[in-house]
Amino acid sequence: MAKKTRSDYTIGVDLGGTKILAGVVDENGGVIGSSKKRTQPEDGPEAVLKRIVKTMQEAVEASGIGIQDVKAVGMGAPGVIDMEHAMVVSATNMPGWKNIDVGKVVRQWQNVPVWISNDVRVATFGEQIAGIGKGVKNFVAVFVGTGIGGGIVIDDKIYVGGRGSAGEIGHMIVLADGPFAVGGSVRGSIEAIASRAAIERDLRVAMSAGRQSILPTLVPDINSKFTSSILARAVDKGDALTIEVLQRAAHYLGLHAASLINAFDPEMLIYGGGVLEALGEWILAPIRSIALQYSLNKVNLDKVRVVESKLGASAGIIGAALMARRGNFVI
Amino acid sequence: MAKKTRSDYTIGVDLGGTKILAGVVDENGGVIGSSKKRTQPEDGPEAVLKRIVKTMQEAVEASGIGIQDVKAVGMGAPGVIDMEHAMVVSATNMPGWKNIDVGKVVRQWQNVPVWISNDVRVATFGEQIAGIGKGVKNFVAVFVGTGIGGGIVIDDKIYVGGRGSAGEIGHMIVLADGPFAVGGSVRGSIEAIASRAAIERDLRVAMSAGRQSILPTLVPDINSKFTSSILARAVDKGDALTIEVLQRAAHYLGLHAASLINAFDPEMLIYGGGVLEALGEWILAPIRSIALQYSLNKVNLDKVRVVESKLGASAGIIGAALMARRGNFVI
Repeated sequence: MAKKTRSDYTIGVDLGGTKILAGVVDENGGVIGSSKKRTQPEDGPEAVLKRIVKTMQEAVEASGIGIQDVKAVGMGAPGVIDMEHAMVVSATNMPGWKNIDVGKVVRQWQNVPVWISNDVRVATFGEQIAGIGKGVKNFVAVFVGTGIGGGIVIDDKIYVGGRGSAGEIGHMIVLADGPFAVGGSVRGSIEAIASRAAIERDLRVAMSAGRQSILPTLVPDINSKFTSSILARAVDKGDALTIEVLQRAAHYLGLHAASLINAFDPEMLIYGGGVLEALGEWILAPIRSIALQYSLNKVNLDKVRVVESKLGASAGIIGAALMARRGNFVI
Repeated sequence: MAKKTRSDYTIGVDLGGTKILAGVVDENGGVIGSSKKRTQPEDGPEAVLKRIVKTMQEAVEASGIGIQDVKAVGMGAPGVIDMEHAMVVSATNMPGWKNIDVGKVVRQWQNVPVWISNDVRVATFGEQIAGIGKGVKNFVAVFVGTGIGGGIVIDDKIYVGGRGSAGEIGHMIVLADGPFAVGGSVRGSIEAIASRAAIERDLRVAMSAGRQSILPTLVPDINSKFTSSILARAVDKGDALTIEVLQRAAHYLGLHAASLINAFDPEMLIYGGGVLEALGEWILAPIRSIALQYSLNKVNLDKVRVVESKLGASAGIIGAALMARRGNFVI
């Protein structure tokens, strides 16, 4: 590869409750080096901040560029972000994260501009600039992982709403009299029904009621998390209970998608997040089918594309790196 | 009133399945003369078109202006509209309305430009330009009548989506395993639960199961429609069944509002339509309370205003007249 000049690269960081991903990204959204660590948020913000710096450092080493070639750092974090000061005001599932000045810590490591935004919005931005949403004027991205989040693009711009919290589509209510969200007080939201946490809850309830499943044989011990890849392995092996619970989740995700189509009439719905990465078209096909069936406007329904994320697990780092490159993210 | 010059007035027509309203409207959205007729769609499009012309004529007479002072005609109609040709492609609850060239008929009466758009979108436009939504950048209007429709304003513009059908918020699913819409094949949509038609259905089911109500004494015969004003009279008289069914509808409307707030983060939700006009704050208060309770983002929640339409039943004619005045409606 030809030697590039300084300012050709930005680093993107995807901070999650489970893992930290960092990548060195070029101007086209190509990842030329990356690294990954467990977040271990239980160690507190100080320790996590050190791990973030370490992960970035390793990504730079993996990329083969010099540290001086990094122009800026972008980060997606779960929770409420103060973009102006590059601070995490509060982070979901990360104890002790109250007004954490991430920007300062990153600049102590390398004195470059730092941009932080909400994780799903950053991933949506990645899909818009370098992913399947490229050139699509109006779309909604739906990320189905431990929780469910989303990002909305209207007229080629990330739409943030009056208070900056548009896109909390996991909290749309789909089954009003349904179950409470795991650890939440709201019932019947799509997150309470079809997130990985909700799927795991339903599986455990069914097993404790005597339903048979091979799931316990796929995890180190019965209290281990049923991750999305464990769920995918159970499906591969034909586990009836896992298939049943996931298909129910897909049904409600399809109804949720129909609500999005009826309200927003987007050109595209993009599905990402751990559950989609692990199960792909197996779960997307029924979502698509129900979504289109419940769409009111049948005219040009083929123009509403229900597709998988192109960037997958890299959407966050690519979106964050491109946000930092642009240096003028909308929120 | 000082004599105005030609081009000061436009006519707005609100064509509905039950009634036709027409108004002569000035540049500020003021209605200076209006008229109203029953639609009687069972007589077919020809007869209805004649009635539309008659209603406009009477509105002009009531206003005291000369016919030559009418600059343009705007119309809101229920259903699918071909704006470019001022045609109604198909109209909800109006048999025989297939590709009806309304523009041509109006121009035969008076040779002025004719603009047609979807009824709820026109009413949303009215609230935006001359109603409670004036100066509000992002809002959603929710019209609760025989059905439920809506309009979305984003960045000061009516948002129409990829295929022009954004805002079909009555077809967002709130209670997935709930009842089917009246005359529809979709279950659990907010229209299937909380529209006037759904409320009437629930009341009739309860009465046929033996529940007591004064409703039969308020209508000419038991098969007469329970209109919104009949419902309001039953509430005034303390009818327990009507109150119960309406409060349940309000609860689900509140959850639907929360979904809208979580997805769009609007600055305002505007409620209009027959049910709201008849019941006002009595039904809006519980909607507001549930909406805010189920909103995820509690920061600056007082900035999300849940309010009644200012223009009420005139939103349609005012919006249509202002659309015609502008002559460049967005869809």
